[in-house]
Amino acid sequence: MDANAVAKQFSEFYYNVFDTDRSQLSGLYRDSSMMTWEGQPFMGTANIVEKLTNLPFEKVQHKVTTVDAQPSGTGLLVFFTGLLAVDGNAEQPLQFSQTFQLQQNENQTGFWVSNDIFRLNYG
Amino acid sequence: MDANAVAKQFSEFYYNVFDTDRSQLSGLYRDSSMMTWEGQPFMGTANIVEKLTNLPFEKVQHKVTTVDAQPSGTGLLVFFTGLLAVDGNAEQPLQFSQTFQLQQNENQTGFWVSNDIFRLNYG
Repeated sequence: MDANAVAKQFSEFYYNVFDTDRSQLSGLYRDSSMMTWEGQPFMGTANIVEKLTNLPFEKVQHKVTTVDAQPSGTGLLVFFTGLLAVDGNAEQPLQFSQTFQLQQNENQTGFWVSNDIFRLNYG
Repeated sequence: MDANAVAKQFSEFYYNVFDTDRSQLSGLYRDSSMMTWEGQPFMGTANIVEKLTNLPFEKVQHKVTTVDAQPSGTGLLVFFTGLLAVDGNAEQPLQFSQTFQLQQNENQTGFWVSNDIFRLNYG
Protein backbone atom coordinates (compact mmCIF):
# COMPACT_ATOMS: atom_id res chain seq x y z
CA MET A 1 0.00 0.00 0.00
CA ASP A 2 1.52 3.32 -1.09
CA ALA A 3 0.40 5.76 1.60
CA ASN A 4 0.97 8.87 -0.49
CA ALA A 5 -0.91 7.47 -3.49
CA VAL A 6 -3.87 6.51 -1.29
CA ALA A 7 -3.85 9.97 0.31
CA LYS A 8 -3.81 11.72 -3.04
CA GLN A 9 -6.62 9.54 -4.40
CA PHE A 10 -8.64 10.04 -1.20
CA SER A 11 -8.20 13.82 -1.30
CA GLU A 12 -9.38 13.98 -4.90
CA PHE A 13 -12.41 11.83 -4.14
CA TYR A 14 -13.34 13.49 -0.85
CA TYR A 15 -13.10 17.12 -1.95
CA ASN A 16 -14.71 16.45 -5.31
CA VAL A 17 -17.71 14.82 -3.64
CA PHE A 18 -17.76 17.54 -0.97
CA ASP A 19 -17.86 20.26 -3.61
CA THR A 20 -20.46 18.46 -5.75
CA ASP A 21 -22.93 16.88 -3.29
CA ARG A 22 -21.62 16.54 0.23
CA SER A 23 -24.51 14.32 1.33
CA GLN A 24 -22.77 11.62 -0.72
CA LEU A 25 -19.86 11.55 1.72
CA SER A 26 -21.98 9.32 3.97
CA GLY A 27 -20.40 6.24 2.40
CA LEU A 28 -17.04 7.15 3.93
CA TYR A 29 -18.22 7.21 7.54
CA ARG A 30 -19.46 4.59 9.98
CA ASP A 31 -21.31 4.70 13.27
CA SER A 32 -18.00 4.75 15.15
CA SER A 33 -16.56 7.60 13.05
CA MET A 34 -15.68 10.86 14.77
CA MET A 35 -15.54 14.29 13.18
CA THR A 36 -14.46 17.53 14.86
CA TRP A 37 -15.51 20.49 12.74
CA GLU A 38 -14.11 23.83 13.86
CA GLY A 39 -14.03 22.48 17.41
CA GLN A 40 -17.50 20.90 17.39
CA PRO A 41 -17.55 17.10 17.91
CA PHE A 42 -19.82 14.75 15.96
CA MET A 43 -20.05 10.96 16.06
CA GLY A 44 -21.60 8.52 13.61
CA THR A 45 -22.56 8.74 9.95
CA ALA A 46 -25.92 10.42 10.49
CA ASN A 47 -24.63 13.21 12.75
CA ILE A 48 -21.59 13.84 10.60
CA VAL A 49 -23.53 14.04 7.34
CA GLU A 50 -26.19 16.20 8.95
CA LYS A 51 -23.49 18.67 9.99
CA LEU A 52 -21.84 18.66 6.58
CA THR A 53 -25.07 19.13 4.65
CA ASN A 54 -26.18 21.96 6.95
CA LEU A 55 -23.02 24.03 6.60
CA PRO A 56 -24.09 27.58 5.80
CA PHE A 57 -23.03 27.81 2.17
CA GLU A 58 -24.35 26.55 -1.13
CA LYS A 59 -21.35 26.43 -3.40
CA VAL A 60 -17.96 25.41 -2.15
CA GLN A 61 -14.69 24.69 -3.87
CA HIS A 62 -11.61 23.16 -2.25
CA LYS A 63 -8.17 23.50 -3.75
CA VAL A 64 -5.76 21.13 -2.05
CA THR A 65 -2.23 22.51 -1.70
CA THR A 66 -0.42 19.81 0.31
CA VAL A 67 -1.00 16.08 0.78
CA ASP A 68 0.87 14.14 3.49
CA ALA A 69 0.41 10.55 4.62
CA GLN A 70 1.88 8.01 7.02
CA PRO A 71 0.96 4.46 7.95
CA SER A 72 -0.66 4.64 11.39
CA GLY A 73 -1.98 1.74 13.42
CA THR A 74 -4.18 -0.43 11.22
CA GLY A 75 -4.63 2.32 8.64
CA LEU A 76 -3.33 5.61 7.36
CA LEU A 77 -2.99 9.08 8.81
CA VAL A 78 -3.51 11.68 6.06
CA PHE A 79 -3.20 15.43 6.31
CA PHE A 80 -4.27 18.08 3.84
CA THR A 81 -3.93 21.84 3.65
CA GLY A 82 -5.42 24.06 1.01
CA LEU A 83 -7.76 26.84 0.05
CA LEU A 84 -11.52 26.91 0.32
CA ALA A 85 -13.81 29.28 -1.58
CA VAL A 86 -17.46 29.48 -0.66
CA ASP A 87 -20.43 30.84 -2.60
CA GLY A 88 -18.35 32.06 -5.47
CA ASN A 89 -16.02 34.14 -3.33
CA ALA A 90 -12.98 32.86 -5.22
CA GLU A 91 -10.99 36.04 -4.71
CA GLN A 92 -10.94 35.65 -0.95
CA PRO A 93 -10.42 31.96 -0.29
CA LEU A 94 -9.93 30.73 3.27
CA GLN A 95 -7.08 28.49 4.28
CA PHE A 96 -8.03 25.13 5.72
CA SER A 97 -6.28 22.12 7.14
CA GLN A 98 -7.82 18.72 7.74
CA THR A 99 -6.57 15.42 9.05
CA PHE A 100 -8.14 11.98 8.65
CA GLN A 101 -7.43 8.56 10.02
CA LEU A 102 -8.38 6.11 7.28
CA GLN A 103 -9.14 2.44 7.82
CA GLN A 104 -9.15 -0.19 5.13
CA ASN A 105 -12.51 -1.80 4.34
CA GLU A 106 -12.97 -5.45 5.28
CA ASN A 107 -12.76 -6.46 1.61
CA GLN A 108 -9.67 -4.25 1.21
CA THR A 109 -11.10 -2.43 -1.79
CA GLY A 110 -11.13 0.99 -0.17
CA PHE A 111 -11.03 3.05 2.96
CA TRP A 112 -13.41 4.54 5.49
CA VAL A 113 -12.87 7.44 7.86
CA SER A 114 -12.52 6.65 11.57
CA ASN A 115 -11.34 10.16 12.49
CA ASP A 116 -11.76 13.54 10.81
CA ILE A 117 -10.62 16.92 12.18
CA PHE A 118 -11.19 20.13 10.20
CA ARG A 119 -9.99 23.65 10.88
CA LEU A 120 -10.04 26.91 9.01
CA ASN A 121 -6.87 28.95 9.46
CA TYR A 122 -7.86 32.53 9.42
CA GLY A 123 -5.26 34.93 8.14
CA MET B 1 -8.72 9.52 29.65
CA ASP B 2 -9.90 13.00 28.66
CA ALA B 3 -8.64 13.41 25.08
CA ASN B 4 -8.91 17.19 25.06
CA ALA B 5 -7.07 17.55 28.38
CA VAL B 6 -4.26 15.30 27.17
CA ALA B 7 -4.02 17.24 23.91
CA LYS B 8 -3.83 20.58 25.71
CA GLN B 9 -1.18 19.30 28.11
CA PHE B 10 0.78 17.75 25.25
CA SER B 11 0.66 20.95 23.19
CA GLU B 12 1.95 23.01 26.12
CA PHE B 13 4.77 20.57 26.78
CA TYR B 14 5.75 20.02 23.15
CA TYR B 15 5.84 23.65 22.01
CA ASN B 16 7.48 24.85 25.22
CA VAL B 17 10.29 22.33 24.82
CA PHE B 18 10.49 23.06 21.09
CA ASP B 19 10.88 26.77 21.75
CA THR B 20 13.39 26.28 24.60
CA ASP B 21 15.66 23.40 23.52
CA ARG B 22 14.22 21.27 20.77
CA SER B 23 16.91 18.56 21.16
CA GLN B 24 15.00 17.62 24.33
CA LEU B 25 12.03 16.44 22.26
CA SER B 26 13.88 13.16 21.70
CA GLY B 27 12.10 11.63 24.71
CA LEU B 28 8.79 11.81 22.84
CA TYR B 29 9.88 9.73 19.84
CA ARG B 30 10.85 6.09 19.33
CA ASP B 31 12.61 4.20 16.59
CA SER B 32 9.28 3.45 14.93
CA SER B 33 8.14 7.09 15.02
CA MET B 34 7.48 8.90 11.76
CA MET B 35 7.65 12.62 11.12
CA THR B 36 6.79 14.45 7.90
CA TRP B 37 8.15 17.99 8.02
CA GLU B 38 7.01 20.23 5.18
CA GLY B 39 6.72 17.13 2.99
CA GLN B 40 10.06 15.55 3.97
CA PRO B 41 9.76 12.14 5.68
CA PHE B 42 11.90 11.09 8.68
CA MET B 43 11.80 7.91 10.73
CA GLY B 44 13.21 7.13 14.17
CA THR B 45 14.26 9.30 17.10
CA ALA B 46 17.74 10.10 15.80
CA ASN B 47 16.63 11.23 12.33
CA ILE B 48 13.70 13.21 13.68
CA VAL B 49 15.73 15.04 16.31
CA GLU B 50 18.54 15.71 13.85
CA LYS B 51 16.02 17.37 11.52
CA LEU B 52 14.46 19.42 14.31
CA THR B 53 17.77 20.63 15.72
CA ASN B 54 19.06 21.58 12.27
CA LEU B 55 16.09 23.74 11.31
CA PRO B 56 17.46 27.04 10.02
CA PHE B 57 16.52 29.33 12.87
CA GLU B 58 17.84 30.04 16.35
CA LYS B 59 14.89 31.45 18.23
CA VAL B 60 11.39 30.20 17.68
CA GLN B 61 8.10 30.83 19.40
CA HIS B 62 4.87 28.92 18.84
CA LYS B 63 1.50 30.30 19.79
CA VAL B 64 -1.14 27.60 19.65
CA THR B 65 -4.56 28.82 18.49
CA THR B 66 -6.62 25.62 18.30
CA VAL B 67 -6.38 22.23 20.02
CA ASP B 68 -8.46 19.28 18.83
CA ALA B 69 -8.33 15.65 19.92
CA GLN B 70 -10.06 12.34 19.30
CA PRO B 71 -9.45 8.80 20.56
CA SER B 72 -7.90 6.89 17.65
CA GLY B 73 -6.87 3.25 17.64
CA THR B 74 -4.83 2.52 20.75
CA GLY B 75 -4.07 6.19 21.34
CA LEU B 76 -5.08 9.73 20.51
CA LEU B 77 -5.18 11.81 17.36
CA VAL B 78 -4.37 15.44 18.18
CA PHE B 79 -4.36 18.42 15.86
CA PHE B 80 -3.03 21.91 16.45
CA THR B 81 -3.03 25.14 14.50
CA GLY B 82 -1.31 28.34 15.47
CA LEU B 83 1.28 30.97 14.77
CA LEU B 84 5.03 30.58 14.60
CA ALA B 85 7.55 33.41 14.92
CA VAL B 86 11.19 32.76 14.14
CA ASP B 87 14.29 34.72 15.08
CA GLY B 88 12.39 37.52 16.73
CA ASN B 89 10.20 38.21 13.72
CA ALA B 90 7.11 38.44 15.92
CA GLU B 91 5.39 40.93 13.66
CA GLN B 92 5.24 38.51 10.77
CA PRO B 93 4.37 35.14 12.27
CA LEU B 94 3.71 32.18 10.00
CA GLN B 95 0.64 30.02 10.34
CA PHE B 96 1.28 26.36 11.04
CA SER B 97 -0.76 23.23 11.50
CA GLN B 98 0.48 19.96 12.96
CA THR B 99 -1.08 16.61 13.69
CA PHE B 100 0.20 13.87 16.00
CA GLN B 101 -0.84 10.34 16.76
CA LEU B 102 0.00 9.79 20.42
CA GLN B 103 0.44 6.39 22.07
CA GLN B 104 0.29 5.75 25.77
CA ASN B 105 3.53 4.59 27.42
CA GLU B 106 3.66 1.02 28.71
CA ASN B 107 3.46 2.27 32.31
CA GLN B 108 0.58 4.58 31.31
CA THR B 109 2.24 7.65 32.79
CA GLY B 110 2.52 9.53 29.56
CA PHE B 111 2.49 9.47 25.78
CA TRP B 112 4.92 9.08 22.93
CA VAL B 113 4.56 10.19 19.31
CA SER B 114 4.05 7.49 16.69
CA ASN B 115 3.15 9.96 13.91
CA ASP B 116 3.88 13.64 13.41
CA ILE B 117 2.99 15.75 10.37
CA PHE B 118 3.89 19.44 10.22
CA ARG B 119 2.98 22.08 7.66
CA LEU B 120 3.34 25.81 7.38
CA ASN B 121 0.33 27.50 5.82
CA TYR B 122 1.61 30.40 3.85
CA GLY B 123 -0.76 33.30 3.51
